[in-house]
Amino acid sequence: MPAKNGKQFLDRINLAKPSVWFRGEQIDGRLSDHSAFRGLMSAQAELYDMQLHPDLKERMTYTSPTTGDPVGLSFLQPKTVEDLRKRRQMMMLWGEKHHGLLGRSPDYMNTGLMAFFAAADVLEEKDPRFADNLRKYYEYCRENDSSLSHAFVQPHASRFDELLDDGSIESCAASILEENEDGMIVTGAFLLATQGVTTDEVLVYPPASLYMPEENNPRTFAFAVPNNLPGIRWICRETLVGGDSGYDYPLSSRFDEMDTLVIFDRVLVPWERVFIHGDDHLSMRLFSESGFHVHSAYQVLCRYIAKLEFTLGIILYMAESLDKSGSPSTMEKVTEVIVHLETLKSLLIASEAGASLDRFGSMLPDRKPLWTANVIFPKIYPRMMEIIQLLGGSNIIMIPSERDFAGSSRPDLDKYLRGGGIDAYSKTALFRLAWELSSSGFGGRQTLYERFFFGDASVVANRLYQSYTDKEAYIGKIKSFLGEKNE
Amino acid sequence: MPAKNGKQFLDRINLAKPSVWFRGEQIDGRLSDHSAFRGLMSAQAELYDMQLHPDLKERMTYTSPTTGDPVGLSFLQPKTVEDLRKRRQMMMLWGEKHHGLLGRSPDYMNTGLMAFFAAADVLEEKDPRFADNLRKYYEYCRENDSSLSHAFVQPHASRFDELLDDGSIESCAASILEENEDGMIVTGAFLLATQGVTTDEVLVYPPASLYMPEENNPRTFAFAVPNNLPGIRWICRETLVGGDSGYDYPLSSRFDEMDTLVIFDRVLVPWERVFIHGDDHLSMRLFSESGFHVHSAYQVLCRYIAKLEFTLGIILYMAESLDKSGSPSTMEKVTEVIVHLETLKSLLIASEAGASLDRFGSMLPDRKPLWTANVIFPKIYPRMMEIIQLLGGSNIIMIPSERDFAGSSRPDLDKYLRGGGIDAYSKTALFRLAWELSSSGFGGRQTLYERFFFGDASVVANRLYQSYTDKEAYIGKIKSFLGEKNE
Amino acid sequence: MPAKNGKQFLDRINLAKPSVWFRGEQIDGRLSDHSAFRGLMSAQAELYDMQLHPDLKERMTYTSPTTGDPVGLSFLQPKTVEDLRKRRQMMMLWGEKHHGLLGRSPDYMNTGLMAFFAAADVLEEKDPRFADNLRKYYEYCRENDSSLSHAFVQPHASRFDELLDDGSIESCAASILEENEDGMIVTGAFLLATQGVTTDEVLVYPPASLYMPEENNPRTFAFAVPNNLPGIRWICRETLVGGDSGYDYPLSSRFDEMDTLVIFDRVLVPWERVFIHGDDHLSMRLFSESGFHVHSAYQVLCRYIAKLEFTLGIILYMAESLDKSGSPSTMEKVTEVIVHLETLKSLLIASEAGASLDRFGSMLPDRKPLWTANVIFPKIYPRMMEIIQLLGGSNIIMIPSERDFAGSSRPDLDKYLRGGGIDAYSKTALFRLAWELSSSGFGGRQTLYERFFFGDASVVANRLYQSYTDKEAYIGKIKSFLGEKNE
Amino acid sequence: MPAKNGKQFLDRINLAKPSVWFRGEQIDGRLSDHSAFRGLMSAQAELYDMQLHPDLKERMTYTSPTTGDPVGLSFLQPKTVEDLRKRRQMMMLWGEKHHGLLGRSPDYMNTGLMAFFAAADVLEEKDPRFADNLRKYYEYCRENDSSLSHAFVQPHASRFDELLDDGSIESCAASILEENEDGMIVTGAFLLATQGVTTDEVLVYPPASLYMPEENNPRTFAFAVPNNLPGIRWICRETLVGGDSGYDYPLSSRFDEMDTLVIFDRVLVPWERVFIHGDDHLSMRLFSESGFHVHSAYQVLCRYIAKLEFTLGIILYMAESLDKSGSPSTMEKVTEVIVHLETLKSLLIASEAGASLDRFGSMLPDRKPLWTANVIFPKIYPRMMEIIQLLGGSNIIMIPSERDFAGSSRPDLDKYLRGGGIDAYSKTALFRLAWELSSSGFGGRQTLYERFFFGDASVVANRLYQSYTDKEAYIGKIKSFLGEKNE
Repeated sequence: MPAKNGKQFLDRINLAKPSVWFRGEQIDGRLSDHSAFRGLMSAQAELYDMQLHPDLKERMTYTSPTTGDPVGLSFLQPKTVEDLRKRRQMMMLWGEKHHGLLGRSPDYMNTGLMAFFAAADVLEEKDPRFADNLRKYYEYCRENDSSLSHAFVQPHASRFDELLDDGSIESCAASILEENEDGMIVTGAFLLATQGVTTDEVLVYPPASLYMPEENNPRTFAFAVPNNLPGIRWICRETLVGGDSGYDYPLSSRFDEMDTLVIFDRVLVPWERVFIHGDDHLSMRLFSESGFHVHSAYQVLCRYIAKLEFTLGIILYMAESLDKSGSPSTMEKVTEVIVHLETLKSLLIASEAGASLDRFGSMLPDRKPLWTANVIFPKIYPRMMEIIQLLGGSNIIMIPSERDFAGSSRPDLDKYLRGGGIDAYSKTALFRLAWELSSSGFGGRQTLYERFFFGDASVVANRLYQSYTDKEAYIGKIKSFLGEKNE
Repeated sequence: MPAKNGKQFLDRINLAKPSVWFRGEQIDGRLSDHSAFRGLMSAQAELYDMQLHPDLKERMTYTSPTTGDPVGLSFLQPKTVEDLRKRRQMMMLWGEKHHGLLGRSPDYMNTGLMAFFAAADVLEEKDPRFADNLRKYYEYCRENDSSLSHAFVQPHASRFDELLDDGSIESCAASILEENEDGMIVTGAFLLATQGVTTDEVLVYPPASLYMPEENNPRTFAFAVPNNLPGIRWICRETLVGGDSGYDYPLSSRFDEMDTLVIFDRVLVPWERVFIHGDDHLSMRLFSESGFHVHSAYQVLCRYIAKLEFTLGIILYMAESLDKSGSPSTMEKVTEVIVHLETLKSLLIASEAGASLDRFGSMLPDRKPLWTANVIFPKIYPRMMEIIQLLGGSNIIMIPSERDFAGSSRPDLDKYLRGGGIDAYSKTALFRLAWELSSSGFGGRQTLYERFFFGDASVVANRLYQSYTDKEAYIGKIKSFLGEKNE
Repeated sequence: MPAKNGKQFLDRINLAKPSVWFRGEQIDGRLSDHSAFRGLMSAQAELYDMQLHPDLKERMTYTSPTTGDPVGLSFLQPKTVEDLRKRRQMMMLWGEKHHGLLGRSPDYMNTGLMAFFAAADVLEEKDPRFADNLRKYYEYCRENDSSLSHAFVQPHASRFDELLDDGSIESCAASILEENEDGMIVTGAFLLATQGVTTDEVLVYPPASLYMPEENNPRTFAFAVPNNLPGIRWICRETLVGGDSGYDYPLSSRFDEMDTLVIFDRVLVPWERVFIHGDDHLSMRLFSESGFHVHSAYQVLCRYIAKLEFTLGIILYMAESLDKSGSPSTMEKVTEVIVHLETLKSLLIASEAGASLDRFGSMLPDRKPLWTANVIFPKIYPRMMEIIQLLGGSNIIMIPSERDFAGSSRPDLDKYLRGGGIDAYSKTALFRLAWELSSSGFGGRQTLYERFFFGDASVVANRLYQSYTDKEAYIGKIKSFLGEKNE
Repeated sequence: MPAKNGKQFLDRINLAKPSVWFRGEQIDGRLSDHSAFRGLMSAQAELYDMQLHPDLKERMTYTSPTTGDPVGLSFLQPKTVEDLRKRRQMMMLWGEKHHGLLGRSPDYMNTGLMAFFAAADVLEEKDPRFADNLRKYYEYCRENDSSLSHAFVQPHASRFDELLDDGSIESCAASILEENEDGMIVTGAFLLATQGVTTDEVLVYPPASLYMPEENNPRTFAFAVPNNLPGIRWICRETLVGGDSGYDYPLSSRFDEMDTLVIFDRVLVPWERVFIHGDDHLSMRLFSESGFHVHSAYQVLCRYIAKLEFTLGIILYMAESLDKSGSPSTMEKVTEVIVHLETLKSLLIASEAGASLDRFGSMLPDRKPLWTANVIFPKIYPRMMEIIQLLGGSNIIMIPSERDFAGSSRPDLDKYLRGGGIDAYSKTALFRLAWELSSSGFGGRQTLYERFFFGDASVVANRLYQSYTDKEAYIGKIKSFLGEKNE
């Protein structure tokens, strides 16, 4: 199946029936009927529908080089700046649809997979089979419009090694336990496999060991499998869906991406789905040489911009409805949001302006502005939420529900809760939106998620610092400046 | 009834049956059975039980001057520093019980009422009846251990004046519509009457007009009435109780203080419950001369300290369970919390050290350190929540529920979610606590609430600035310093 | 004279002999011999020398449309994006020469004058003579490579109006006292005429009255005159030159731009030098429609980037010499600088990418990224200075002088003050540089200057806020989002 | 000589004639005549004069237990809270005299020496001679009112070890080279011996080795010697005195504490002046058990308060003279200063309220509030300077000099530079003061100094964190809170 529509997305997910556990019980009905999933899946289905919408199809898909069918544009390996722009426009279309609230909209993982695919030559050097696996898998996903999640962060406990009585060491770190002709048998657990249950496939790649790299490390691998293989168990977190009412819960009724703890208990991974097998160096090289973080950061920056535009709109509308647009204190806060939005937009423009071909023929955006955005966003997003709270105050707390408006309190609500140029019903809708984004459980998870999207602050800063190749040049300028003095 | 116990508290509230609207429907059963109220009411009942607990009674009550019965210590007008300390110790006992999470624990409003009572002489000057009303009402509350809420912030819409066709002006600002021999008839609405439904009485006092003070302003009054008078309607906000499980929702299952929009629709307020009637000057004087904000700030600072101690404990325990206690980045964050805690404690000590008698014979703590605390806390509390998020990361998101531990996933959870020196079940309990405080809807409302507890940032800063009588002295020092230069 | 060289610059300034007062005495020798000016003037001469340097001439000048001679590129009205880039490259060349330390390098005022010139049509509408004056003056400056300062901020005292006994009002605000056939007679004072003494001409334009605009307001005008007209007196501030040694004072010995209080005492301004005469509306229109702030901000952003690159180099070199490059705390600080630098660079790229023709045919860079930079820089520059202090610590205080190294202490200094891979003499040179930039009187003035370059924080934020035309569109998106909910 | 006066202070310093090098040349005249020292020494002399001033003597001195003469109160070992308060009042008197600008006012080192003396028993355990030396030295200083500096930070280069050809290791770390019957011969260098030249004695104690403590480590010692011993060379930094005019340089003309690099080149330290000799453990114990950092922090907090009061006065006066006192933005800034001042004052009160006797019989203030102040002040002081800049703007730059007011520009200055209710001469004096404190070289050094007074931010935070013994108790509370859930 080429680029799919929403119904096809829903049908496939409902058919898969992975082993999903929610509040201690296994879900056995259709996932899209479950209160914790139906809103999210419907929002995702809308994204997929856009692919085949006559007005958008051309901007959302391209022609498959193998079948001639339209396939999702996020699978496209960009080879020119024009390709980059096409990808950006497509990602913006999706981003504006989900307002940046879906960290795992399909383009995120599709982009990552594309990056690995484009760099498959790296794997070729050691064993052509793994390179071949990767290329075929990419093609499979592109042609079937498979949706993916990924899993790579292991629980804290995976770092504990315990010495058993017989002298052996026991650890719960993910590892290859056995291998046979069909594949390798893997056990372990991963945190925060976001949308693992509402996508078709999961890509698993624990980070390689940096300090003592080995060639046959049983803890180092990368593979992708359907999410319903025997031995895979998905344990859901608390649902943050407030309810089905789009009026009461404009965000959580649609955009609560479920995070899961995924357990692999002696899962047999078929060889044709294995990309990395034991080689720490190769694992690191695939990761860094493919520009995975660069391509992702480009997609994510589009999402950041959509989210900040949505936030700015909310803030401006709040100010207006509270008759505060003209106050110096409001203007100061709004300008802060504008400054951040203009900064992100400029970083995106600069990353394209500085794009260059890498050795695999991919047009790689300039990583410096992108990784700068990755440092900035986790700091400003919580501040934007703070601004919503500071601007809205008690208006964010005192929000009646759709049913209050349907009942006998309506005349009082209409009288007392209207705002500047806005009736009480619409104003309450606005402040429920502000509440969900800034102060609800849904909002709390969004803030946490953004803080750590690409790792904690030091990891993200370090990525930029280490890659900043201009450091010596800048020192050189100072040496030359001082040298003039010395002579 | 003198100092009451928890059961008496519950019975009285259940009996009152005020008109409470929740999600569009009127609550008609016992309030203490309702999912949105039972946890809170049970927590409050525990506070009242402390009053009569043999180990605590002496520290929680004092002897009524009229009956000789034990009455709640928060009603005591402090006349000596020793009285202040007794009050502080009692407030700390309650604060440590609810961890500072109840902004409306009984001592808050009892303290406010005591402050007004002590300054009743102010009302005497104009009309002895109102002073008498106030004194009797205070005595009534003290002797019956009545619990109070208060209402004074009106909706934004109350500021709109509309010109009708007949030339009259319509406004929805609260005002006295009529008066008769029984009392005055009041219509209007107030935001955020926190705990209005779970206390006996409500004290209503819209702020007086500063700019054009009148003597018979129909919008200026102060009165207190039972919360079930005809014409009073309480509209609840969204409940933030996650559920009844104390494991899953350690905070919201007990401490979600319901906020309400309270509507007064032609409510007849009996004359003996009226304290201010139309006089803007008098209203302002009662408020400022009674030291209402000083006495309250003293109680609130005790609460702040209890809350920060609770937060520090959570943060320290999180760090320990993640094996992060020794990392520089963690130590930096923890030290930040310690610095704030030590600062608040020192401000409390200094407010006592600088206490002095006011003209009503009350021992008034020094307002400068107290109002300093009021400026500081709204800024540091959100930062403390941020520190919890930064320290906990994905551990705060990936929190299974009590029922997950009761089901077939338990062995996996036990294996993969344990922490440093802590089993998975206890660690999850800890991180569910961290989640509720920092990132849930309950936590979001707490953060919003603290940001605006004593008004927005400029109001609170202004209160300190205006009262800072040392300003001229400091300028004088500089003049003298420069004067030396001139000669 | 077309584009001039350094010697020509020096000769002309030395010849002019304006009335300059320094520490209570009038300077009567050659300005370029005076300790407070010789370093600065020599640095400026180097800038002018670049214009005629064979390697740079093509990038620094263009062909005069009237004479065919090479004239300074900063006079060029940009009509294409290519023109913009040429201007940018030239400004970067100068910026890198003075490291962004000269707020009044020649391109700043040349750019402003060009902006006014390009919009001279605005003046045409009312009185063609003033438009003509402006066009001729621009051409005069371009063809003579005149250097300019400007004066527009009046002292606080200018806002005082005093009622005299005879009922008239006395004010010290700058105003036109009289007019005659030769010109208008002006009295008044302006603060901070930076480089007023070391440039040829001064452009004077007090801001028009926004609130009660008049057509013949004697306080509203714009003109340009040589800085040595009778009646003009320049009073210098404290010199911040530490001394002549380039080793000891690598910055202040070259880049201390003197700020002056300039007094106009019945100065006769010839008519042909008058551009605005009394019309508040016209004054505002010239200012805003010419894109003065946009063109300037483009030049200033180039300067900001040069300054931040210089700062980053210093910080990196300091870290290296203290063996701190690898410490997490240093990496965090350095990354902060990198983030700011990449942000500024991206804003510059975005301003070009979004450039468009205005109605005068000028290619105007996009103002949004530029005015964003204007909000950002005054906040980050002081933080950069703080980072230098935090990184350098006592090394910034304990800096011996060139003469210490020339004396008997040298062996001790060599032994004890060397750093990681750097000898004591070079390390001291580096830390003297860090000291001058971050912690000396020269540095203090730089920080103050950057804080207020385009006005105080609220002015700069307001400029961006008011011009942000996308506000309604963002509100519209939210309305549409909520509308979907309503149906 | 008991408590000395200013003249005695000056005479003794002038007589000592240590080897002082300034700008490459040795100073050979009277130090108090030298432009870099005369202002400072005169300010210090004023402090000493206060000791014998009839109005102050009782508050500045106490009766020597050995001679019955009045001796300086900062030498008093506090044994009661009353003693603490006496010390505090005396330190406040001195602090208000120098406005907290002298980090090395005599009470600082006197306090440190007192702390060591009180804990001399620690040394007793190993070798009574060293304890005896310490006690006698303390008595010597107290009875002679000796003034001290100290030296303990070694240059970065002291950490380099170089392997020589013969296999030995060369290092420039300070160490005992030889010992003989007269004493030990020491070579090494120390940074930032502030006021080393303008005090009588220097106390030298490089920190002991924490990681590999030895008993006979040649790099571990503590001793005190006159600053003019053969082999000691003092190399001065840049002077930051702007000039002698108290009008132009109200601060640097009096309070520029010279920092020096002190070189010990085979200096013979007599045995009777040695307190620690090679024993790392003992060195650490003396330092921590004496409460050196606690006693010092108490003195320093008094100084912080004096400095912040001075700063608040300046800021208030600036606001007044610029007619900005009523603006919200000014009130916000001023309130920020007030908040910090009230916080520091409360921390001081709390440190006294929590004082307790240590095992040496000293009344030790509570370290928690004190070390909290040490964390806070280095962060707020730079912010206060920023506030001065933000409030003052160009008024801080455009400051004419005393000589300008004496010359022909005076009428113009009087007319244009006056402020709100203040004439131009006085306003300029005020803004020169603001300039020197916030933006001059003198101010830059003050800011740097405060940032690192007790070590860098992580050292100071760590000191509080490590000593915070309540951590387990707070964790315990959470365990108990969660435990209730488990049962």
